[in-house]
Order: sequence, then structure tokens, then C-alpha cells
Amino acid sequence: MKVSVGIDIGGTNTVWGLIDEHGTVHVEGQIGTKDFDHPTDFVQAIATILKGALKEHQDFELIGIGIGAPNGNYFNGTIEHAPNLVWKGVVPLKKLFQQHFQLPIWVTNDANAAAIGEMLFGVAKKMDNFVVVTLGTGLGSGFVVNGELMYGHDAFAGELGHTIIERNGRSCGCSRKGCLETYASATGIVRTAKERLNNYTGTSLLSQQAQLSSKSIADCAEQNDALALEIFDYTGHQLGFALANTVAISSPQAIVLFGGLANAGALILNPTKHYMEQYMLNLFKGKVELLISSVPEHHAAILGAGALVWKNVYGALG
Amino acid sequence: MKVSVGIDIGGTNTVWGLIDEHGTVHVEGQIGTKDFDHPTDFVQAIATILKGALKEHQDFELIGIGIGAPNGNYFNGTIEHAPNLVWKGVVPLKKLFQQHFQLPIWVTNDANAAAIGEMLFGVAKKMDNFVVVTLGTGLGSGFVVNGELMYGHDAFAGELGHTIIERNGRSCGCSRKGCLETYASATGIVRTAKERLNNYTGTSLLSQQAQLSSKSIADCAEQNDALALEIFDYTGHQLGFALANTVAISSPQAIVLFGGLANAGALILNPTKHYMEQYMLNLFKGKVELLISSVPEHHAAILGAGALVWKNVYGALG
Repeated sequence: MKVSVGIDIGGTNTVWGLIDEHGTVHVEGQIGTKDFDHPTDFVQAIATILKGALKEHQDFELIGIGIGAPNGNYFNGTIEHAPNLVWKGVVPLKKLFQQHFQLPIWVTNDANAAAIGEMLFGVAKKMDNFVVVTLGTGLGSGFVVNGELMYGHDAFAGELGHTIIERNGRSCGCSRKGCLETYASATGIVRTAKERLNNYTGTSLLSQQAQLSSKSIADCAEQNDALALEIFDYTGHQLGFALANTVAISSPQAIVLFGGLANAGALILNPTKHYMEQYMLNLFKGKVELLISSVPEHHAAILGAGALVWKNVYGALG
Repeated sequence: MKVSVGIDIGGTNTVWGLIDEHGTVHVEGQIGTKDFDHPTDFVQAIATILKGALKEHQDFELIGIGIGAPNGNYFNGTIEHAPNLVWKGVVPLKKLFQQHFQLPIWVTNDANAAAIGEMLFGVAKKMDNFVVVTLGTGLGSGFVVNGELMYGHDAFAGELGHTIIERNGRSCGCSRKGCLETYASATGIVRTAKERLNNYTGTSLLSQQAQLSSKSIADCAEQNDALALEIFDYTGHQLGFALANTVAISSPQAIVLFGGLANAGALILNPTKHYMEQYMLNLFKGKVELLISSVPEHHAAILGAGALVWKNVYGALG
């Protein structure tokens, strides 16, 4: 059976899997990213593990390796100045892997990998124009245009999280103000909750939570807590506004929400859809699907990375 | 010699030209669009004229017809509900032309035609990722991604003029508020000038103009009129803000300004560049060229339409 390797490099852990063309993960594992001071040692270790796994499954034929990594540069096969990794500067990841494997190897960032995963194995199957929005610690996005990832001139297209939606708005980690991700992300909704709680005179389940997270805010909203519901409404308002502008630019068939905050399901989907339609140009009203990802979250990262191989080797799958 | 026909349908006039692969216009002409109540008669008339021109130039071999039209739909070959045309509803333009010519025929909107024209014959030669922004009565845009026009799912991508940059901002013809084109267009800058003049207590050359237009405001700014310069600064501020967000999404190599307001040259380019850089994510700062179109304006529309043929028949030209 032909398989691809999907590798997802995170700040703490790296997970990998052997993935067939239908998106089934046959073998998987993980190693600590932080355990390796140098990327050369890291790649050496993961290559040894992968070769061991392939030896145990002689019926697998490896066709290529796809790697999703923070600040992964598709054009150069590098990781570039990733703030959450211990490896600083530019890491020539593809080159390092090529020392162990004579196979096609691709590197991209997490959100682009998610988009390819959604196109091959998720709700965006057979779509040629769609956007995946990942709502985690930050907000990432991958745009598929004419059936291909939009990388832009320098491989860094898709920074939707850093479009400014409120001039002089919230301070962002990027050193500017009012970026979308300061409002619409797992972190952003917690920020909203803290702001609201500070000025709230009513009673709310939120003030009884040991820790505020997108999950605990969702739990309170599920119990019809008025403040928690208002927080989701506000978050959907900001996200819906940004998505209406995104639609005007790229006219996608669908926008797929994924990760952290997207796990709140209808709680985030409904207000986002409402405000997106409200802000949208008439031409597009009612035409753009807003969906929650169908790729299982615990496998999404490696499926996206593995899908990169299938997409590049075989084009879009049936 | 192989030539394409480029046709640009405007509300008042339709211009056409026979264009070679280097962008030279060999024969050209125009007819009144408004003179024809029915598109069938219009197409009949223009077909007769074109056939006459080709008869006179027996050395020309016609390879295809490209048509730029307001609300032109590339996928369907139609004009759809164009507010500025006398023909209402959906006009099956491609079908009508096919009754007269057994040749490849393409229809697109003005801004997309301008983008293809810029890629084949203008400052975006050999660029695979760029944006053309037309600053006329409204603001149109054409996005080239991976060397291809981004049409989106329904052929209406590129409505940058209708991204909202000020919630509760200026009323727009689209029935919403705060659209970019209400600020950054030949019409938008006049609106700004009228607003400013109403509240201005100083003296300005602007109050002596018989008519306010992007041209007359530029003339005053050329003479160092403080208010006119401030108006260009404000317009560039709004446009630069929107372009910084556009860059975050699509990471283009260049943004090309074209038409009406772009004729002001450095007066609009400099403030736009300044604010675009100010609002831009660090990652992109100093990387994106902001250019003024180099396609001669009086031929731009037909060159863009004709370029559509060359692009589709031969791909990008050397």
C-alpha cells in the first residue's frame, strides 16, 4: 500500500503518521520537539523512528514526506524564525530530511496544511476555492484558489489573523493594534471574557470558573449564561465582519472553521454566520457556506501534512 | 500576423482593437453602446465592423476575442445585472458572439482584464502574484495568484472596493457603509474634498475650481495647496490601510494602481505607500512594490481584453 508520512512539528511535541490516500492513519507516534537543541539531531531521531516503522510494515511503499511547521516556508523548505520553537533563525528542514530520504519532501505552515487536509479528507472535498480558518492560540488561514494553495510571492500569504479590523484596537503580539486574532481565537475570546467580567455587575457562571478558556466559556454558554452568550456573539461579530471582507476579495465556495474555538460548534458558527451575512456585499449573500471542519482534531495536523504529499504527487484525489 | 480582438464595453461607448502578441494595437474603432436597445443588435453591428476590418487586413489571422464588460462573468460568458448598461438582466454575450465567430471567446470584468493586460503588456510582466487596483468611478481589483486570475467560486472575486474599512463610514452605492471605494476612487476623493471644504476656514485653491474632480484636486496639490495635499494624504491613508490588509491575505509581489485617481502619480502613490508600510505586518514591510500602471490609459481597456485571449491561448508570454 502506498503511504505518505505526515509530520506536524509543534513547540512541545512533534507527531507523525503513515497515511494512505483515503486519509487513514495506519501508524503514528510522537517525540518531544524540545528534547532536541539542534534540528539536525531532531531530524536524525525522527528518521530513525520512521525507518523502523517502515521496516515493520514491509507492505507500505513510502511516496513522500509532508511537514507542517510554524513559519514553514513552502518555497524554501525551511522553518523561518518560528517564535515557539527552540531552534532559532532559518532551519533548512527539507535539506536535513533529504539526507535521510531520497523522496519528495514538502514543508508548509500549519494553516496551509490544514487547508490541504480539508480539501483531500474533510468538508472541502472537491472544492476549488475555499478558505480554512484555524482558531487556536492565534488565527491562521489557508486559501485555496483555483484548486491550489495561495502561497503568494514569498510563501507567507494567508495571514488573515493579522488583518487589522479595529484601528487602535487591542494590542497584538505582532506589535500592531486591532488584529483579527486578538478578538477571534481561543486566546481572543478569553481576552474578551476577562474584559467583560471586569465591568459586569450581574452574576455569571464565568466568575466561578477556575480558569477561563474557550472551552469553559463554551460550557457556560451551553448553560445559557447570558454573559457567555454575549461573549460568543461579540466574537462572532468580529470574525463575521472580517470574513465578509474576505469573501469580497476571494469569493470562496466555503469557509471552514477549525481548532480550539471552532470546537464550540454552533455557539461560534451561528453568530459568525449572522454577522458575516449582515456585512456581506449583496452579490455574495446566502452563497458562501460557513462550515466546521470534519477532520478529526487529534489527527488533523498529521493528516494535513500527509495530504500535502498526496496533493502534490497525485493532484486532487477523487 | 496573429491578432486577438479586444473589446471593452462601457456604459456609453464600446471600443475595440486588433492586438498582436506584443500589445501593439493595429486597428481600432468604437461604437455607441447606448445606440442599441438589444444586445443582439449590438453584437450584430460589432461583428459586421470586425469582419470588415479583417477583410481589409488579409494578413491578420484572428485567434480569439476577449471582452471586458461591467459585471462580466468569466465562467458563464455573460454580463450579469450591470447597473450602467441599458441591457438589463443576464446578457449571454459569449453565445451572441459565437453566432458570428467560430473562435474562442472570453468575457471578464474590467478590473480582471486590466490585471491580465498588466501581466502581459505592463509593469507586472512575468509576475505570478500581484494585484491591480483600478481607481475610477469606483474601485475595482484583479488578483493574480500562481500566475492565474483569481475568479473565486462564482467569478466575482476581487471586490476589494467593497471591503468595509470604516464600520458606520460613508454610505456606498451598494447600500452598505464604509466601503473602500467611497474613500479611494476618483469619486471618493471628490467626496473627501467636498467634506473638507465645508469645514475649512483657511483659503484653498480648491474653492476656486469650477468643478471638483480627481484631476482638479491633483492640480491644486501640484501647486502645494495645503488642503489638496491633506486630501491626498487622507485618501492614501485609507487606501494604504486597505492594501496592508490585502497584503496580509495574498502576499503579492506588487500592487499596481491604474486609472482616474492613479493618474495623480506620486501625489497618491507616496501617501498610500507610507500608510501601507505603517499598517503592514513586519513580515511584509519593504517587500511589496507599489506601482503605477504602465499600460497607456487610452488603450488599456482593449489591451486588457485582448490580452485575455493571448493569456488563454498561449499562457504567459515571454
